[in-house]
Amino acid sequence: MDNEHLSRIERLQAAMAAADIDAAFIYSAVNRRYFTGLQTSNGLLLVERQGTPVFYTDFRYLEVAHRTLTGVEIRKFKPSKEQLADYAALGKAWRTVGYEGNLTVAQYLPLAETFTAAKMVSVTEIISTLRGVKSAGEIAAIRKSAAANDALLAELIDTFRPGMSEREMLRHFRMAEAARGLSESFDPIICAGVNAVECHHQPDDTILRPDSELLIDMGVVVDGYCSDMTRTLFFGKPTPRFKEIFDIVLETNRAVAEAVRPGVRCCDIDRLSRDIIGKYGYGDYYDHGLGHSVGIEIHEMPSLSRTCETVLQPGMVLTDEPGIYIPGEVGVRIEDLLVVTETGCEILSHTPHEIVIPC
Amino acid sequence: MDNEHLSRIERLQAAMAAADIDAAFIYSAVNRRYFTGLQTSNGLLLVERQGTPVFYTDFRYLEVAHRTLTGVEIRKFKPSKEQLADYAALGKAWRTVGYEGNLTVAQYLPLAETFTAAKMVSVTEIISTLRGVKSAGEIAAIRKSAAANDALLAELIDTFRPGMSEREMLRHFRMAEAARGLSESFDPIICAGVNAVECHHQPDDTILRPDSELLIDMGVVVDGYCSDMTRTLFFGKPTPRFKEIFDIVLETNRAVAEAVRPGVRCCDIDRLSRDIIGKYGYGDYYDHGLGHSVGIEIHEMPSLSRTCETVLQPGMVLTDEPGIYIPGEVGVRIEDLLVVTETGCEILSHTPHEIVIPC
Repeated sequence: MDNEHLSRIERLQAAMAAADIDAAFIYSAVNRRYFTGLQTSNGLLLVERQGTPVFYTDFRYLEVAHRTLTGVEIRKFKPSKEQLADYAALGKAWRTVGYEGNLTVAQYLPLAETFTAAKMVSVTEIISTLRGVKSAGEIAAIRKSAAANDALLAELIDTFRPGMSEREMLRHFRMAEAARGLSESFDPIICAGVNAVECHHQPDDTILRPDSELLIDMGVVVDGYCSDMTRTLFFGKPTPRFKEIFDIVLETNRAVAEAVRPGVRCCDIDRLSRDIIGKYGYGDYYDHGLGHSVGIEIHEMPSLSRTCETVLQPGMVLTDEPGIYIPGEVGVRIEDLLVVTETGCEILSHTPHEIVIPC
Repeated sequence: MDNEHLSRIERLQAAMAAADIDAAFIYSAVNRRYFTGLQTSNGLLLVERQGTPVFYTDFRYLEVAHRTLTGVEIRKFKPSKEQLADYAALGKAWRTVGYEGNLTVAQYLPLAETFTAAKMVSVTEIISTLRGVKSAGEIAAIRKSAAANDALLAELIDTFRPGMSEREMLRHFRMAEAARGLSESFDPIICAGVNAVECHHQPDDTILRPDSELLIDMGVVVDGYCSDMTRTLFFGKPTPRFKEIFDIVLETNRAVAEAVRPGVRCCDIDRLSRDIIGKYGYGDYYDHGLGHSVGIEIHEMPSLSRTCETVLQPGMVLTDEPGIYIPGEVGVRIEDLLVVTETGCEILSHTPHEIVIPC
């Protein structure tokens, strides 16, 4: 654990003090990793408002925990009843106990029954607010991840050809990814032709035909940080209809990147994208949010959506991914990864937006 | 959706009727997939004790839902308040409402607040009981998955050599996996030398030395079904200490495979493994469960553990993975995938247990 992880815990404790929360039970693998740097499938980081946090884990991870963690006490999980009794003893004076919203009911209910005299409150927003603003080190990792994603797509563009099925293209994706020592931040979405109208289509035996589009939504993980990018390629000569829809989506994507800056609300950026697509009469064909934050998880908060009133701050990393999907006809999405800077934003995805491959 | 999926829903409804549960909210991706065959990141299968279930999803998956689902009604999710109002209207007469134990608190609490007059009960056990006994089709898929895992390990054994780091071996693993069109059922565990004492070690820059052990715990996914296998290889001439520990673990693994049959309790099989390792004086160095079920998830119920009193039935698929881990010295785990048959069990992992590679 380095100083950055310790300072994350300190900021959590400060936020807990401000919200009058006595203790927080951090069960999720991703938040445990955010606060300690250690990735395990089992564990609990128990953070009190003051003092040294306790990291509980089982037999399998005690060795690595002792080897890598500093500034936290390490204990082995006891059988569940004894463990709950320990929490109860520890938390006699707690009046407010924090839990993560993504805690499972099976984990939550025993806790709630242990602390019947305390108020149970979600710390999801506190933690996602901390995680929403990335440090310089985190941005450097995301920048590397976005660059690796660009390089991987460049290799794939040289490989993909009409006649290949989506599944074959997925196989090429995974081979290229593995050869580069990368792992993916989500199952890549590869849509040949009209399959592009299904936003989250799963690769199947559909063959990429000449004179048709190919939508690829992909991301990798570098140094534990995700990237995310979508391009809608065309193999052959783009049809006027494709070109019309593509240009509207690209105009929207660019207008968003122009508008993103500190002080603007997420929902207002989402609104802007909806206004442009709506102006062209395609509002009904754009029914997902404009974007989401990206970090150690592929979907983080805040999001560029109708309902997110978060005000943008420097260090936030978000996707800019408008799309238009006309059933049976054409689907286009263009997605870049952006980091909010002091004065605007920097686009971390460097693959050209318009890629037409003669065939 | 084929008849198998429809019959799974019917069996769920029968189990709900027997347990007097009026409706079950099935949110988890894996259970939605188990009951419908459709894999999406967003959705809810709402099953009443009788009648046609409703599959809710968002914009992104409506197209594929309409294309692939039969025997269920498909509806688009509304904004959350309206959606909850719909559930309330639908469930006026419900007295008992089922939820999954792995539902998140953020999903559970609004439901519990919607059905204050009803009793909320977990359907986790009902569903895991259904999923615990695999159909012939599921066993065929797991058999293919185990065979693909054997073939992948055979290729890797030809590739791995002293001088490679764990990370390089991981890269070879992922390239071979991708070339075969496979995906992994979990992050492979690759431990060179004494790292094998950490049960869930993550591959790092440790170099595989001549005359040392290599523990690989790996699995793939074929037709949506997982496999899982561990082998502890030796490169060079095994030390007497390694051989001693290896032989005890192998004796335990084999005794378990002999003992697994219908009618025996899981905890008694676990006990047997602990008795053998304990008899040799290494009980303190074997502190994990003996095994777990495997199916569409890598960890399913029932488990071969101290506390699982489930009685084995034909069609259950479990791992048999005893291990001994002596800190700073030697770690050995040998894991096979077994399917319980009418008279005993069949071992689905066909890679030899003892692999010594001269170097």
